Amino acid sequence: MLLNVGTSIRSATRFSPFIITHSSPSSPSSFCFSFSPKQTVSFTLQSSQMASFTTLSQSPPKLLFRQLFEKESSTYTYLLADCSHPDKPALLIDPVDRTVDRDLNLVKELGLKLIYAMNTHVHADHVTGTGLIKGKVPGVKSVISKASGSKADVFVEAGDKISFGDLFLEVRATPGHTMGCVTYVTGAGPDQPQPRMAFTGDALLIRGCGRTDFQGGSSQQLYKSVHSQIFTLPKETLLYPAHDYKGFSVTTVGEEMLYNPRLTKDEETFKNIMENLNLAYPKMIDVAVPANMVCGLQDLEPKAD
Amino acid sequence: MLLNVGTSIRSATRFSPFIITHSSPSSPSSFCFSFSPKQTVSFTLQSSQMASFTTLSQSPPKLLFRQLFEKESSTYTYLLADCSHPDKPALLIDPVDRTVDRDLNLVKELGLKLIYAMNTHVHADHVTGTGLIKGKVPGVKSVISKASGSKADVFVEAGDKISFGDLFLEVRATPGHTMGCVTYVTGAGPDQPQPRMAFTGDALLIRGCGRTDFQGGSSQQLYKSVHSQIFTLPKETLLYPAHDYKGFSVTTVGEEMLYNPRLTKDEETFKNIMENLNLAYPKMIDVAVPANMVCGLQDLEPKAD
Repeated sequence: MLLNVGTSIRSATRFSPFIITHSSPSSPSSFCFSFSPKQTVSFTLQSSQMASFTTLSQSPPKLLFRQLFEKESSTYTYLLADCSHPDKPALLIDPVDRTVDRDLNLVKELGLKLIYAMNTHVHADHVTGTGLIKGKVPGVKSVISKASGSKADVFVEAGDKISFGDLFLEVRATPGHTMGCVTYVTGAGPDQPQPRMAFTGDALLIRGCGRTDFQGGSSQQLYKSVHSQIFTLPKETLLYPAHDYKGFSVTTVGEEMLYNPRLTKDEETFKNIMENLNLAYPKMIDVAVPANMVCGLQDLEPKAD
Repeated sequence: MLLNVGTSIRSATRFSPFIITHSSPSSPSSFCFSFSPKQTVSFTLQSSQMASFTTLSQSPPKLLFRQLFEKESSTYTYLLADCSHPDKPALLIDPVDRTVDRDLNLVKELGLKLIYAMNTHVHADHVTGTGLIKGKVPGVKSVISKASGSKADVFVEAGDKISFGDLFLEVRATPGHTMGCVTYVTGAGPDQPQPRMAFTGDALLIRGCGRTDFQGGSSQQLYKSVHSQIFTLPKETLLYPAHDYKGFSVTTVGEEMLYNPRLTKDEETFKNIMENLNLAYPKMIDVAVPANMVCGLQDLEPKAD
């Protein structure tokens, strides 16, 4: 399945190998990061020299990226947008109900058009912001995995692509923390961000991982998910989890393959670790899970309609 | 003054205009971000084609960058390193005493050589980690502005460059929150990170600024500092403050020029705002300031020597 807004996904072969990356400080795209292909030959040009090299009628996609933190549940929400696209289409990953106004205000200030409010899984520690967002911004579609069993506008499965402008996220199934967990990975290809970025939800945390004792969790499945779907990404891939409790903001595949205290172990040891965590019953689970299974909309449905 | 470790600062004119940016997933540099010049012509190459374009005997500098958070004081600590340099020289900006072990462990895991522990100013809300770091990692030098009046190994002034490998930070004087506040800005030039990154301390916060009623603070001076030293940077410059209380991680010059609720006002209005904040006496000031004036070393001096 291909979720697509704006122009279609650009295949590398559709373009001349020459791409001009030109940032203009006064344009709205000045808020964006630019990125270059993995292997590039770059040389500085005077503006007057540039015209002769221009072979694209549009500028290459530029990722705007923001990491946002919600203190109560130590949740990270991610804002991504293609700010080279005329519509500046944007998406939010794992928004939290109590920080929806902050997030939507930022979207507005940056001149973005929010098209998707996505979850990596049905969270047990906070209520998703997707319901509130849908009530406040008409046209936004909520996205979650089919395997989650939750309500949403769009259901995704492994291999699906979620497009926003000329950028896209690839869906990888990473069950184990819950049965419906997915990891969203920025696209592979010369016109996509480099290094790649993976939004791992609770499947992989920085030097840790999500618990596996609720919501169809399985330590065996989580071990397999991380090793087959995350550790197979290029080592420089940036990993952005749904939570951090120690003040870290990002890690890489290479780092976690060396230093994750749980997932560097063999499967049997990992299983033993996960079975003996002796964690307390999740204090928000009885409120959050029912709310999140209906996309956080349980109290809002009359209004949202 | 030029603080220099590793090879000297590379001037753009020393190099052929052709630069190969080549990331190898299996090398230690796989933890690094790569960056490209501001105006580039890029085209994808097969590995077999690359040799003919190689005109540098060493790879261009690559910035490793991590943003770290300390919850108690809502302080951001920044880790920067040139991970293309054989020594992987690194520095920490605004480390906090209670998170020193976390930060040093990360430095060790990433295989970096910490050379500087720097402060943007004498903090009033937490004790700097520089003293503890100096006690734990021999050879690390503490850095602060001369105008701060604090003790440190190295004193910097406006215009100084702080080199780490082939990357450098430029010092800008931004007094007003305290009389000795500086902003550290990544270098300008084709072989330095693009967009530029500025570590603003408490001079500029995301949609805010530091208070001006203690430690030689002056609203007039802060207004001038931000407008002359920060708002004159390219609009896409990424701004990383010493604190955030709402879960934001980064902003840009362009954003703050449009949306900062205080600093977009005229100077007189700004002065009125700052004079009427009615903030409580800073709860840590009587502990933190004396400790930070001697680089956080007051209890450690016998041990550190």
